[in-house]
Amino acid sequence: MMDFENELKSRTDRVDSILEKYLPEAEGPQKTVLEAMRYSVMSGGKRLRPVLMLETYTLFGGHDRVIEPFMAAIEMIHSYSLVHDDLPALDNDEYRRGRKSTHAAFGEAMGILAGDALLNYAFETVSSAFTIDQSPRTARAFSLFAKKTGIFGMIGGQVVDVETEGKTIPPETMCFIHEKKTAALIEAAMMTGAILAGASEMEITATGSIAHDVGLAFQIKDDILDVTSTSEVLGKPVGSDEKNNKNTYVKYYGLEKSEAEVELLSERALSDLASLPYDNPFLTELIKSLITRVK
Amino acid sequence: MMDFENELKSRTDRVDSILEKYLPEAEGPQKTVLEAMRYSVMSGGKRLRPVLMLETYTLFGGHDRVIEPFMAAIEMIHSYSLVHDDLPALDNDEYRRGRKSTHAAFGEAMGILAGDALLNYAFETVSSAFTIDQSPRTARAFSLFAKKTGIFGMIGGQVVDVETEGKTIPPETMCFIHEKKTAALIEAAMMTGAILAGASEMEITATGSIAHDVGLAFQIKDDILDVTSTSEVLGKPVGSDEKNNKNTYVKYYGLEKSEAEVELLSERALSDLASLPYDNPFLTELIKSLITRVK
Repeated sequence: MMDFENELKSRTDRVDSILEKYLPEAEGPQKTVLEAMRYSVMSGGKRLRPVLMLETYTLFGGHDRVIEPFMAAIEMIHSYSLVHDDLPALDNDEYRRGRKSTHAAFGEAMGILAGDALLNYAFETVSSAFTIDQSPRTARAFSLFAKKTGIFGMIGGQVVDVETEGKTIPPETMCFIHEKKTAALIEAAMMTGAILAGASEMEITATGSIAHDVGLAFQIKDDILDVTSTSEVLGKPVGSDEKNNKNTYVKYYGLEKSEAEVELLSERALSDLASLPYDNPFLTELIKSLITRVK
Repeated sequence: MMDFENELKSRTDRVDSILEKYLPEAEGPQKTVLEAMRYSVMSGGKRLRPVLMLETYTLFGGHDRVIEPFMAAIEMIHSYSLVHDDLPALDNDEYRRGRKSTHAAFGEAMGILAGDALLNYAFETVSSAFTIDQSPRTARAFSLFAKKTGIFGMIGGQVVDVETEGKTIPPETMCFIHEKKTAALIEAAMMTGAILAGASEMEITATGSIAHDVGLAFQIKDDILDVTSTSEVLGKPVGSDEKNNKNTYVKYYGLEKSEAEVELLSERALSDLASLPYDNPFLTELIKSLITRVK
């Protein structure tokens, strides 16, 4: 039987070493912001997105270094989005993963600029993929990646989330927020993996729906933990959604229905994954673990 | 004799119509931020960077649509950098080009997110260039573009500029700021044009030094106008460098020496341009006009 925790650890370690390789050294005149970039990324995150990308790539038979710059890039995007989200004008969070958030540690101006720098560097990192693989797959992965991280993906969700704080919104707007804010980046991760591995059109589409379900389940689970967990376990204050008047699943449907939705989405993702003519037992376990996680 | 002003107008109009084509419509749940993006970009800027890109592309014989997404992208990058620069935590400017700056018009959170959205959308736009030209030139232009706009280019300059406000800094740090903050983006513009047109390695390098000189001259001229012009002419408050305790050429060397430096750099750029075995009279006039401009 597979030891899931050890397998996961070996993958997050690999992500960390890839990030070490791709993140620039903190030196030269712009040393401070380079330190702020590293501080934001090398902060003990779950590395869920790059791990999902790698495992989807492996699922479809990928085995090349071209995946590495994309793995680094998606974690940079995820990190910058948290840095900007924590800013005083947005969620105004002083803590993240058990230590000061980037703007709290480096000042607000540096928080803004370190976020910009990470976002730009993510694409600089993606551009290096073309020196490894010049096939049209790389260009297509770049295009999908940019779309899912941008105004019609993750940023779009952030924006509507911020705009609707404290307001009563129709269910379709709440779905839009959840699908874009979190699911879009999980879609970016898994679909990039599929594209780079040479998956067929149908397989890429199927990967997109699996990622959608996984991402939505992940976000609802996050909202649940914000209510049911403790700040010691989460490494950040709990109850911040209520404090910020966020429109969450939990607020609209209550804990029980939200838990049921997480299970339903995860089951559908797992069944769609099982119907593919390939197998990656670790990926299956990873998706299962997202339902049962406590942080 | 060429009517420079008309020729310039026809080019800025072309840039505006390219931007219209590439910028997304303001509709859907994220309508507000899409409006903020358009507000930030469609604000009557000089369009210097896309025009320099196009004219350099033309100089080296380029005549394809692949230049268009890059022209749109560089103006999006320039626009987002101004939006974030104007934020309260940075320069805290309420006005830009004779009207409210983006955060003043849409709120601080929207200012941050619209800037992020423009930065990301710039790369989304670049990714569409691969559907027009899949040659290695496009990948190389993308890579150069990302490097010059990022932490080792424009953002690097911004960061050191912000960090050293009000401090006495060595001349090499002041040079670093000026070379990165402004020249890097002019280098991105002109070198992208050269790369996409298929210029040789030597020509790309020569274009880089011309752009460096043009960019530095442009920034010093900006610093001069901040002292010598009026807010009516500039469309923004003058004296903001002194207010923000910026380390400018003018502060270090005085007006006269700064004027001389602008002339020296422009002359060198023009002479290097003339030594290339190609000719683009409009590009020559454009570079000349940057010395004599009053806004």
